[in-house]
Amino acid sequence: MVDNNDIGSQMYHLIEELYPICRSITGDGVRKTLTIIKKHIPLGMQEIASGEKVFDWVVPKEWNIRGAYLKNSRGEIIVDFEESNLHVMGYSIPVRKRVSLDELRQHLFTTEEYPNWIPYRTSYYRENWGFCMAHNRYLALEDGDYEVNIDSSLEDGAMTLGELVVPGKTSDEILVSTHICHPSLCNDNLSGIALCTFLAKHLMESRPRYTYRFLFIPGTIGSIAWLALNEDKLARITMGIVVTLVGDSGGFTYKKTRCGDTELDAAVVHALAHSVQTFSVRDFVPYGYDERQYSSPGINLQVGCLTRTPFGEFPQYHTSADNLEFVKPNQLAEALSVYQRILYILENNKTYRNMYPKCEPQLGRRGLYENTGGSNERQPNQMAILWVLNYSDERHSLLDIAEIAGLPFEDIRFAADRLIKCRLLEEVS
Amino acid sequence: MVDNNDIGSQMYHLIEELYPICRSITGDGVRKTLTIIKKHIPLGMQEIASGEKVFDWVVPKEWNIRGAYLKNSRGEIIVDFEESNLHVMGYSIPVRKRVSLDELRQHLFTTEEYPNWIPYRTSYYRENWGFCMAHNRYLALEDGDYEVNIDSSLEDGAMTLGELVVPGKTSDEILVSTHICHPSLCNDNLSGIALCTFLAKHLMESRPRYTYRFLFIPGTIGSIAWLALNEDKLARITMGIVVTLVGDSGGFTYKKTRCGDTELDAAVVHALAHSVQTFSVRDFVPYGYDERQYSSPGINLQVGCLTRTPFGEFPQYHTSADNLEFVKPNQLAEALSVYQRILYILENNKTYRNMYPKCEPQLGRRGLYENTGGSNERQPNQMAILWVLNYSDERHSLLDIAEIAGLPFEDIRFAADRLIKCRLLEEVS
Amino acid sequence: MVDNNDIGSQMYHLIEELYPICRSITGDGVRKTLTIIKKHIPLGMQEIASGEKVFDWVVPKEWNIRGAYLKNSRGEIIVDFEESNLHVMGYSIPVRKRVSLDELRQHLFTTEEYPNWIPYRTSYYRENWGFCMAHNRYLALEDGDYEVNIDSSLEDGAMTLGELVVPGKTSDEILVSTHICHPSLCNDNLSGIALCTFLAKHLMESRPRYTYRFLFIPGTIGSIAWLALNEDKLARITMGIVVTLVGDSGGFTYKKTRCGDTELDAAVVHALAHSVQTFSVRDFVPYGYDERQYSSPGINLQVGCLTRTPFGEFPQYHTSADNLEFVKPNQLAEALSVYQRILYILENNKTYRNMYPKCEPQLGRRGLYENTGGSNERQPNQMAILWVLNYSDERHSLLDIAEIAGLPFEDIRFAADRLIKCRLLEEVS
Repeated sequence: MVDNNDIGSQMYHLIEELYPICRSITGDGVRKTLTIIKKHIPLGMQEIASGEKVFDWVVPKEWNIRGAYLKNSRGEIIVDFEESNLHVMGYSIPVRKRVSLDELRQHLFTTEEYPNWIPYRTSYYRENWGFCMAHNRYLALEDGDYEVNIDSSLEDGAMTLGELVVPGKTSDEILVSTHICHPSLCNDNLSGIALCTFLAKHLMESRPRYTYRFLFIPGTIGSIAWLALNEDKLARITMGIVVTLVGDSGGFTYKKTRCGDTELDAAVVHALAHSVQTFSVRDFVPYGYDERQYSSPGINLQVGCLTRTPFGEFPQYHTSADNLEFVKPNQLAEALSVYQRILYILENNKTYRNMYPKCEPQLGRRGLYENTGGSNERQPNQMAILWVLNYSDERHSLLDIAEIAGLPFEDIRFAADRLIKCRLLEEVS
Repeated sequence: MVDNNDIGSQMYHLIEELYPICRSITGDGVRKTLTIIKKHIPLGMQEIASGEKVFDWVVPKEWNIRGAYLKNSRGEIIVDFEESNLHVMGYSIPVRKRVSLDELRQHLFTTEEYPNWIPYRTSYYRENWGFCMAHNRYLALEDGDYEVNIDSSLEDGAMTLGELVVPGKTSDEILVSTHICHPSLCNDNLSGIALCTFLAKHLMESRPRYTYRFLFIPGTIGSIAWLALNEDKLARITMGIVVTLVGDSGGFTYKKTRCGDTELDAAVVHALAHSVQTFSVRDFVPYGYDERQYSSPGINLQVGCLTRTPFGEFPQYHTSADNLEFVKPNQLAEALSVYQRILYILENNKTYRNMYPKCEPQLGRRGLYENTGGSNERQPNQMAILWVLNYSDERHSLLDIAEIAGLPFEDIRFAADRLIKCRLLEEVS
Repeated sequence: MVDNNDIGSQMYHLIEELYPICRSITGDGVRKTLTIIKKHIPLGMQEIASGEKVFDWVVPKEWNIRGAYLKNSRGEIIVDFEESNLHVMGYSIPVRKRVSLDELRQHLFTTEEYPNWIPYRTSYYRENWGFCMAHNRYLALEDGDYEVNIDSSLEDGAMTLGELVVPGKTSDEILVSTHICHPSLCNDNLSGIALCTFLAKHLMESRPRYTYRFLFIPGTIGSIAWLALNEDKLARITMGIVVTLVGDSGGFTYKKTRCGDTELDAAVVHALAHSVQTFSVRDFVPYGYDERQYSSPGINLQVGCLTRTPFGEFPQYHTSADNLEFVKPNQLAEALSVYQRILYILENNKTYRNMYPKCEPQLGRRGLYENTGGSNERQPNQMAILWVLNYSDERHSLLDIAEIAGLPFEDIRFAADRLIKCRLLEEVS
C-alpha cells in the first residue's frame, strides 16, 4: 500500500531539489536535472549534436548561462539572474553593452495583468536577447543608459534526452513523455517530471505486462529528435500519454488522442470517472505539448495528455508565480494515483471466453451465487460475475464490460479472476 | 373487435383460478396449472426426468407438499401452510421434529420493512427447510420448543414444461416465454401466464405470418432445459419476448434485447410510443427473467422483456401482498392490447419496391391526391403515401418508414395497402 | 465587393417587374417571365408540347387568360381579374354563363381566417373553373343570378422551361432550381427567381470549378419533364439546391438532402452557422418543392432547399398578402450572400496532403509562427495552420477540417493557401 501523504512529499521534495536549476532545451541545466532523476530511476542519457538534422528541424546550438544583470545609469542592479532565472529570456545570446532605455525596451518582457510576476519567454530559433521582469519594476525604469550583461554562451554542443525503458512481459509499448526544458517553473513542468519519476519507480518494482518507455525530453525539438532517431521503434508503441501540469489545485482535464476512441481514452475516462467527482474531457487539438508531434499525421501515435488545469488557463502559467507554493503534495499524490489506476486498467484489460456460453453455468454449486432464491437484493459481485459471463464472447474486453455494466473496472477484474479459478473463463490470446 | 373490459375480466378470472395452487419448479402444482391453461389453448406438456443433464445443470428432484405447520410449546399452530402456501420455503425437505426457538430462527424468513407481509423464499439447489412469516408474528414468538411439521416430498420424478406452437405461413418463429414456477403471487407471474394464454388464443383465430412458440416453463431451469433439448430449433427463432409483471398499476418498462437494435426492439418502442403517454426503455442486463438464458452468449437469441413495474421495484414484489388485489383487469387488458399491437407490427412489417420510382407517380388521377392545388393543409394520408413511395427503395421496411416519418405504423401500413391496390408498390421478397 | 444595398435593390426591382404577370405552369405568362430574366442572363428556353409523356405524367394543355369577371344581377362587377390575377383559379376553363348563387358558391374560394386576403388556388389536372376572393366580399354576396365570364383558353400548346448552364472547369454539376409557375406572389416565388438570376449573373463573371445548371421551371410538372428528358445528364449532377422563399423577414431554414449528410448539407450548415445568429435545419421529407422529384428514389439526386420561413408557416403564404411589401431588399441581399458563401465553400473545398507529415514542419523559419515562445496567446491563423497540417492526411477536406477546428471555412482556406505557397501542402487529386 502506498502512503499517499508520503509519496506526495517525496514528489514535492524532488520538485524542490530541481526548482533552482536553470533549464532550457539544451545545456547543463538539463544534464543536472537528469542526473538528479537518476538517483531515483536508472535513466539513460543521450546527447544529440548541434546541427543534426531531425525531420524538418535542426538541433540548435547548446545554450548555457552563468549570470546576467541589468544596471541603471547609477550602477544599481535592476534585474539580476541570481534572483530568478526567469529574468533572462531563454537562449539569450551573450551581450555586454550600454543601451538607451528606448533600445532596452525592445528587449524587455512583462505581464501587465499581473504586475508583480515575472513572465517566462524564450527565443530558441531566432537569435535575440531579452530580460523578463515584473511590470511594476518596468514602470519604474528611469531614463538614461543601461548596462546589459548576459554571460551566456550559444555554441555547438548537444541536446540531451533522458530515456528509461521498463521491460514488460510483451514488447508492446506504452510511451510516457514529459518535457524537461522549463527553468524555475513548478507545475509546468517539475510536477510532470516528479510524476513520471515515481510512476517509473513504481513500475520497476513489478514485472508489467506492457513495456513502458519514459521520455524526459525538451519540448518540441526533443520529441521531434527522438522520433526522427527512433522511427524503427514506433510500430511497437501502442499508445502514449504526455504528463504535465499535475500539481496545481484544479481538477483533471484529459485531452484525448487524435483518434479519440482508443483503449487509452477509455481507460483514462474510466479511471477518472471512478476516482474523482468531476473532470473534463476534450477532443484532440493540434496545439499543446509534445502530443502535437506524436500525433502528427505521418507519426500518428495515439497519445493523450492528462493534466490538472490546462496550460494557459491559470494565471500563474509561464510566470514566476508557478512556484513552490503553487504545487501541493496531496495534489501530486492524487495525480500519481490516478495515473497508476489508468495503468492498472491497461495492464489488466484482457479479453476472455466464457467456457460455458450456453445458458448460465450453475454458479451456486461453485460458491458464486447465493442459494436461497426470492430475495430482491442483488449482490454487486454477483452482477459483476453475470456481466463478465454474458459479455465474454471474445469481442468484449473487461474494460468494455465494465463500461457496459457501469461498474468499476476493479470489480469486473475481481469477478473475472473468480471465474478463471472456477475454469469458467479462459483468456483469448 | 376485442371488448377490453371483457378480456380483462377473463384474464383476471384465470388468475383467480390459478392463485390458490402451490407451484414450484417441479411438481403437481405446475401440472395443475398447465391443465387449467389447456382449457383455453391446446398446450403440449412435456416431462423431463429428475437427474437429466441440461447443459451445466441437472434437472432436480420433484418436490410436492401436502401441508405444513409450526406449533408452539402450548400446541398452538403459529404458522399454517393452509393459510398461505408462501409460509413454506419452496423445496423445503420433509421435517417432523421439535426444535428450540434458537434453532428455529435459522429457518425463519421475514420482511422487516413490511411487517405484515409474508416473504417468498426458495432453496432449490441446496437441501434445506424453512418457514416464511410476517415479521410482526416473528417478533411475538415465545421462548420454548416448537414442533416443526413439513409434509413434503423431494424425490425422483420430473419437471413439467408447457409448450404451444401456433403455426404461421412461414417457419420463422417468434418465441413468447413466461415462467410458471411461482406459488400464490399474482403479478409475478400469474399475470404473465394469463397474458400469454389469451395472446395465444387470439393468434390461433388467425393464420399469422410468423410461427409462434409459447413456452410456459419454470424459471431458469425450465428455459435451460428447453434450450438444451431443442438446440436444433434455435436457428428458426428470429426474436422472442419474455412476458411477466403485466397486471400492476404501473406504466410499461421494456428491457431491450442483448443486441439492442433489432426489429423487435423497434416494434416494441414504436407500439409503446403510439399507445401510452410514458414508458421506460432499458438496456439489456444479464439479470432478470429467462431472457438471461436466451441471451447467454452461446445461445444469443434476441429476446426482450416487456413488463409494467420491473421486478424488485415495487414493495409487494415476492411477498404475500402480490395478491388478487394487486393486479387489475383493465391493466391486464391494456397490456394484452400493447402486446397485440407489437405482434401486429411484426406481422405487417414488410419491405416494398416503388414501381414508379422516377419522380412521383401522378396520384391525382388514381384518387390518391386532392385535385385543387394551393391549399396549405397536408392530409395525413397523403403524407403517409408520399413517405411510403419515397422510402420504398427496397432498403426500408414499413416500420423504418413509420419511424422516419414520425407516423403510427398503422397509417403507413394503410397507405401501403392503398398503393399496392393501385399497383404502385410491390413486395420485396 | 458586392454592395448589399445595391444588389438587394436590383433583386427587388426584378421582382417588381415580374409581379404583375399572370403565370401558371404553361402559357404566355411563363414566356414573358423568362424573357425578362433573359435581360440579365443568357437563359435558354425550351418548349415541350402538350400531350408529351414524361414518366408517369403527361404535359397538360397550355392555359392562357385574357380577362375574367363576375357580375351580380345588377350588372355590377364583383370580382375582376384586372384587379388581381389571383382572383381566377389557375387553369380555369373558359366560361360564359349565368349561374345562381348556390351554383356559384361551388366555384368560390376564400380564406376565412384572413377575410381581406385573396387565396391562391389552381386546378391543373381536373378541368374546373373558379374564383378566389376575399372572405369579406364573399359574405356580402347577394342572392340572385351571377354572370360568370372567364376569357381563358386551354388548348394544345406547350410548356416552357428556362435553363442556363454556367460552364465550370470540371463537368461535375451543381443544380440550382427555382419554380416560376406562381402568378402575383412575391416571396413564393419571385424571390427565388430573383436570387437565381443574380446568383447566375455573379457566377458568369468568374470561371467556377463546378458547372452550374440553373433551372427556371414550373413546379412539379416542370421538374418531372426536365428529368424525363435529361436522364442522360443526371450522373453529372453531384448535388443541387432548390431556391425559394428568400425575401421575407424570417430567419433561414435549411431542409437537408434525402441522404442528409452530403458535402452540400455540411456546406450549407457551415455557411449559416458562420453567417447568422440562428437558423433551423430540418430532415428531408417527401413533401415541399421540386426536391420531391429530384429526391424520388429512382432519381435520387442529393438536393437541399434553403428558404427563409418555410411554406405554409407564414399566414401570407399563397394569398394576395404575399405581395411587394412582404419581401424586403435587405433580406433578398442577405439571402444572396448566404448562397454565395455556400458556393464559395463548395468551390474551394478541396483535400490536401501535408508534405511534411512527420512532426510539425518548422513554421518559424517560414514566417508562419511567432518566434518568441512562452506566450499563452494563440494566434488564430496559427491555429488554422496547425489544424490544416494535422488533418491534411488525404482523408479530410478543408470543410471537414473547419468543422473539426470550429473555425470559419475562410480561415482554413486562407491557412491552406499560405501553406501551399510554402510548399508544405499539395492538392490530392
